[in-house]
Amino acid sequence: MLHPQSFDVIVVGGGHAGTEAALAAARMGCATLLLTHNIETLGQMSCNPSIGGIGKGHLVKEVDALGGAMGAATDEGGIQFRILNGSKGPAVRATRAQADRILYKAAIRQRLENQPNLWLFQQAVDDLMVEGDRVTGAVTQGGIAFRGRTVVLTAGTFLDGRVHIGLQNYSAGRAGDPPAVSLSARLKELKLPQGRLKTGTPPRLDGRSIDFSQLQEQPGDGVALVGQWGASAETTPEVPVFSFLGRWQQHPRQLPCWITHTNERTHEIIRSGFDRSPMFTGVIEGVGPRYCPSIEDKINRFADKDSHQIFLEPEGLTTNEFYPNGISTSLPFDIQLAAVRSMAGLAHAHILRPGYAIEYDYFDPRGLKNTFETRAIGGLFFAGQINGTTGYEEAAAQGLFAGANAALQALGRDAFVLRRDQAYLGVLVDDLTTQGVSEPYRMFTSRAEYRLQLREDNADMRLTEIGRQLGLVDDARWDAFSRKRDAVARQTEKLRTSWVHPGILAAAEAERLLGKAIEREYNLVDLLRRPGIGFDTVAEVLRTARPNLAPEERVSRETLAVELGDATLADAVIEQVEIATKYAGYIGKQGEEVERAAHYEHLALPAELDYSQVTALSHEVRQKLGRHRPQTLGQASRISGVTPAAISLLLVHLKKKRFKGFVEARPGEGTAPEAPVATSVDATESAARA
Amino acid sequence: MLHPQSFDVIVVGGGHAGTEAALAAARMGCATLLLTHNIETLGQMSCNPSIGGIGKGHLVKEVDALGGAMGAATDEGGIQFRILNGSKGPAVRATRAQADRILYKAAIRQRLENQPNLWLFQQAVDDLMVEGDRVTGAVTQGGIAFRGRTVVLTAGTFLDGRVHIGLQNYSAGRAGDPPAVSLSARLKELKLPQGRLKTGTPPRLDGRSIDFSQLQEQPGDGVALVGQWGASAETTPEVPVFSFLGRWQQHPRQLPCWITHTNERTHEIIRSGFDRSPMFTGVIEGVGPRYCPSIEDKINRFADKDSHQIFLEPEGLTTNEFYPNGISTSLPFDIQLAAVRSMAGLAHAHILRPGYAIEYDYFDPRGLKNTFETRAIGGLFFAGQINGTTGYEEAAAQGLFAGANAALQALGRDAFVLRRDQAYLGVLVDDLTTQGVSEPYRMFTSRAEYRLQLREDNADMRLTEIGRQLGLVDDARWDAFSRKRDAVARQTEKLRTSWVHPGILAAAEAERLLGKAIEREYNLVDLLRRPGIGFDTVAEVLRTARPNLAPEERVSRETLAVELGDATLADAVIEQVEIATKYAGYIGKQGEEVERAAHYEHLALPAELDYSQVTALSHEVRQKLGRHRPQTLGQASRISGVTPAAISLLLVHLKKKRFKGFVEARPGEGTAPEAPVATSVDATESAARA
Repeated sequence: MLHPQSFDVIVVGGGHAGTEAALAAARMGCATLLLTHNIETLGQMSCNPSIGGIGKGHLVKEVDALGGAMGAATDEGGIQFRILNGSKGPAVRATRAQADRILYKAAIRQRLENQPNLWLFQQAVDDLMVEGDRVTGAVTQGGIAFRGRTVVLTAGTFLDGRVHIGLQNYSAGRAGDPPAVSLSARLKELKLPQGRLKTGTPPRLDGRSIDFSQLQEQPGDGVALVGQWGASAETTPEVPVFSFLGRWQQHPRQLPCWITHTNERTHEIIRSGFDRSPMFTGVIEGVGPRYCPSIEDKINRFADKDSHQIFLEPEGLTTNEFYPNGISTSLPFDIQLAAVRSMAGLAHAHILRPGYAIEYDYFDPRGLKNTFETRAIGGLFFAGQINGTTGYEEAAAQGLFAGANAALQALGRDAFVLRRDQAYLGVLVDDLTTQGVSEPYRMFTSRAEYRLQLREDNADMRLTEIGRQLGLVDDARWDAFSRKRDAVARQTEKLRTSWVHPGILAAAEAERLLGKAIEREYNLVDLLRRPGIGFDTVAEVLRTARPNLAPEERVSRETLAVELGDATLADAVIEQVEIATKYAGYIGKQGEEVERAAHYEHLALPAELDYSQVTALSHEVRQKLGRHRPQTLGQASRISGVTPAAISLLLVHLKKKRFKGFVEARPGEGTAPEAPVATSVDATESAARA
Repeated sequence: MLHPQSFDVIVVGGGHAGTEAALAAARMGCATLLLTHNIETLGQMSCNPSIGGIGKGHLVKEVDALGGAMGAATDEGGIQFRILNGSKGPAVRATRAQADRILYKAAIRQRLENQPNLWLFQQAVDDLMVEGDRVTGAVTQGGIAFRGRTVVLTAGTFLDGRVHIGLQNYSAGRAGDPPAVSLSARLKELKLPQGRLKTGTPPRLDGRSIDFSQLQEQPGDGVALVGQWGASAETTPEVPVFSFLGRWQQHPRQLPCWITHTNERTHEIIRSGFDRSPMFTGVIEGVGPRYCPSIEDKINRFADKDSHQIFLEPEGLTTNEFYPNGISTSLPFDIQLAAVRSMAGLAHAHILRPGYAIEYDYFDPRGLKNTFETRAIGGLFFAGQINGTTGYEEAAAQGLFAGANAALQALGRDAFVLRRDQAYLGVLVDDLTTQGVSEPYRMFTSRAEYRLQLREDNADMRLTEIGRQLGLVDDARWDAFSRKRDAVARQTEKLRTSWVHPGILAAAEAERLLGKAIEREYNLVDLLRRPGIGFDTVAEVLRTARPNLAPEERVSRETLAVELGDATLADAVIEQVEIATKYAGYIGKQGEEVERAAHYEHLALPAELDYSQVTALSHEVRQKLGRHRPQTLGQASRISGVTPAAISLLLVHLKKKRFKGFVEARPGEGTAPEAPVATSVDATESAARA
């Protein structure tokens, strides 16, 4: 039967993509329907209990700047917050949180249930309604047809999902959930460009069976530890937040993570299961995520490593479950159990849920327009894992993007497109729709050639205004943002018009504060650009040089806090002034480099080049280039996993070897001013813990 | 593969039966494994968000007295508590609570996760391991075999479950959950006596679309209303509790329910869908619960009624969902929507989840021993809906019973059996195993011939000691119970040894306090037995007659509170002393009546009897007797739905009509001293809201 209500936007699926899509469309004023097979699983974290990390945290902040739910829900459900790469440049600094699954889910559901213009309905979707080359609605398992101007499909791993544990496998959308088989068949009929991918998840452990005394504790940032080791921690003002509107007081009690390691024995056990591995025996056809590999994959590929770090992440405040990050696996259960128990602290570990791999349908994202509307069927949008990606954050960002575009189409408005220099979301959409995927795609800072300007700290500045124009940003966020933006502008202007010169700043004072005397007149922005010089220093320079300024002309953290009536906001404004000032030069340079890089687009790569000899490149990149043998540098740069940094290194090699066409290039160009590829401990961890 | 750990008891299923079974076995010291297809759904309330009611509340209190979780979890998750039949005799008084689904589930999961000796494992069970005629374990969907001395199967509606909405149907264990098809097939192979039943659930409504101003509000007992109508209420000391160890302070914020009604238009709409009803068109073969009928069934069977009361029950504190109790249905969705919208306050109601019926396998409980062990397969126990019952409370009670018996068998101890005069649980087990079921069985006070002694208020007194001997009752409960039991004994003894006589109690005072002068010496127990005379009155009688008693000889609520150092406990003790004293006489009489009734067991019923003429009997009972035409009164009493009260009424009829063998019986005998059959508004509600 046809449901009497018609919708502007119908969103199918209630995961991270679906919830952001539905919320976005509803915020924009569209009558929106969210169809889910189970209201109880809305906002469920199917895999790791964490949000963010390098590249991913950036996406969360962008989703947040566009009014999305993920950041705010993490602030409400987060039980550990850390800034990764905190000691590095702001571009690669990233926020990562552990989340209490139940609190996170509750935060998302509460938003969905209370969002005006949004209706929820529980029943699996079995079919789409298509008239000519346009979608006109969706039909549920029970035969209820909902008419919609547009449909956003966010099916996650449910389309013809198949769970693998060793050589056993069965149909499922996720452990414990039924698959979407009819819908998969229907989409195949529509002849959309379809393939199979796989992803995996580790076994979950009962905390009661873990010996924490043998593990290394990893607390979050800024927590105040309470009581014994292993005890909980109270949240403090130093604990990071995710949302632009987030406050540390929203955080629940904080918990530590724990670190153990695989060892030779673990690896031996794992290898002994290779002959029953669905991956190595060809039972699984789908390709898995290279950057979030299973433990068997890691041990197979990096045979020389005799230990991998494993993080035991708490799953929440009210559960004993732990998520052992780093041992995602589809090996048989006996191997899982023996491998887990071979690690320090886990000798008696009880597995609560087995690890497994899941294979599912995805659709080649090159079949999508740059709005995520399918080329084949008008009004039908795809977002999330169905587009060949992996990760909650990638899903959320796509969901918001597709939801907004579906809304715009329903409203007859222009599409929403972001450029690669505007947002990671722009990079994500462009990468997917132009390059497609050969394995589940995840975000890295190294994917963004404009990464110096695509920082977490300026996500609000980059996107809130766009979100406001689209109707995604509500008044509260807009007002708070406007206050900050105006304060940054005023403060920058104030620094620009505050002058000091040798006549009023004694050489000794200048040396004390700036390291050397000043030889001419400078404004404070000029001084702030200098390496190692911060806002508080230039403020002191001014105070020292011109002690008798009128109150409104003074520059200091305190003055700004009083002026804004909000010390937290003052700190945020000063941080932004500092970073924007310091980065202005690098960003200009980066633009030039990106342009220069474009010049190499059509340069032919020598046919005789032996990639295995280009030792500056990672093993992985060498393998990929050797296998694909791209004809031009442009093609090489579009191979999934071949980063801009790798292209720079390749350029250096080609120049050094004086290959034709490359000799005129200056060595080192194309290299970003700071290491964009994650190589530090933090970054490795982030890759492992995505 | 075989899991390295062996278990004493393996429980399959994590609903109300499974969780109590697992907790009970673990409390008794057995290494216990709970296998569930999804840890996230442990303790889920699949149907109505409420616990208790007449007969059912009794079961909850019995489960609680045996150390079970249901009562305590309800105290933690309950958002409305009421005492039904509060103005009637204690035997039919019952507690009923609305529960926040999320809080209730969390309370159960917290208990499961932290129960010593209990391990959880997530994966659906596909097979049982059977050696000879004994079960030896269970095998999961992923091929993991767990060895167990005993197995308790609590499969709920999952065995070959099929969801029906109109003429559409699909395989599912519950809306949103996969069915257990392999296990069903496997059990069929084992040739256990199997059949199909069905149950149903109403559509769920979005509170944002309900016009509450058109509804009648129904607050809970003892709440302090805060703010406007429809606003929430704070819990107070007057709000009832479920658990013996419960305290009102455990309750979260309290919410009202709301009342609307079906009307002529609703009934018309519903009738218009009869031709697409899976029940009426024969698509559903399973028999549904007579006492929790679907709305189409009610309208079909009671065609003369032009309105039914519908309760809108809140599903929790953090959701807008409402459960419209009374319109369980498997009619097509268009009919559901139109019918809902025809009711006052629901004109614009949005359905969040459609109502549906589910058909599932059950096994004839006459195939069970009186321990719930299957006769066919040693060590295999069944509990819950698989035994042909309906209701959370019936499931929980069976789960505890089966879990305890599985544990006893594993431990080589004697079985746990309860007599019909000990507990509703005894009635339940006896009814099921001796009479079987012809429709989903639910508990009523009228099923218990000894109902005067099977009260909620004395569930602790009846069962805690038994539970302690079994190892089900922990020290905290045992200590609290012992204190109360001893205090009741001491207080009763004190009343028994406190004497008054005309010489010390002036006639005027006696008249004022007792309604008439006393003519001889009485102790306070004698006086307390008089109708309308309570503890406080006899205490005043003593104080008036003997004003100069030593402090330790005085009788009063305050004295007892001081003695016990706990006013709440003092009140509970006095309540128990009062009820036990007053009921002692009735209970003696009831015993005689039950014995006399046994005398009629073999009395032949006249072949010429026209049951349709026995107007004292309900329409339902007349139908059943007419259809079955039992040969003896004993047989008649064992027909499902033919209550002891009905047998009494039939006896009266047979005597009045002077049928052979019945004339010598005194009229009225066999009738309980108070109406045991629920006929009041409260009771009807309870039946409708089971």
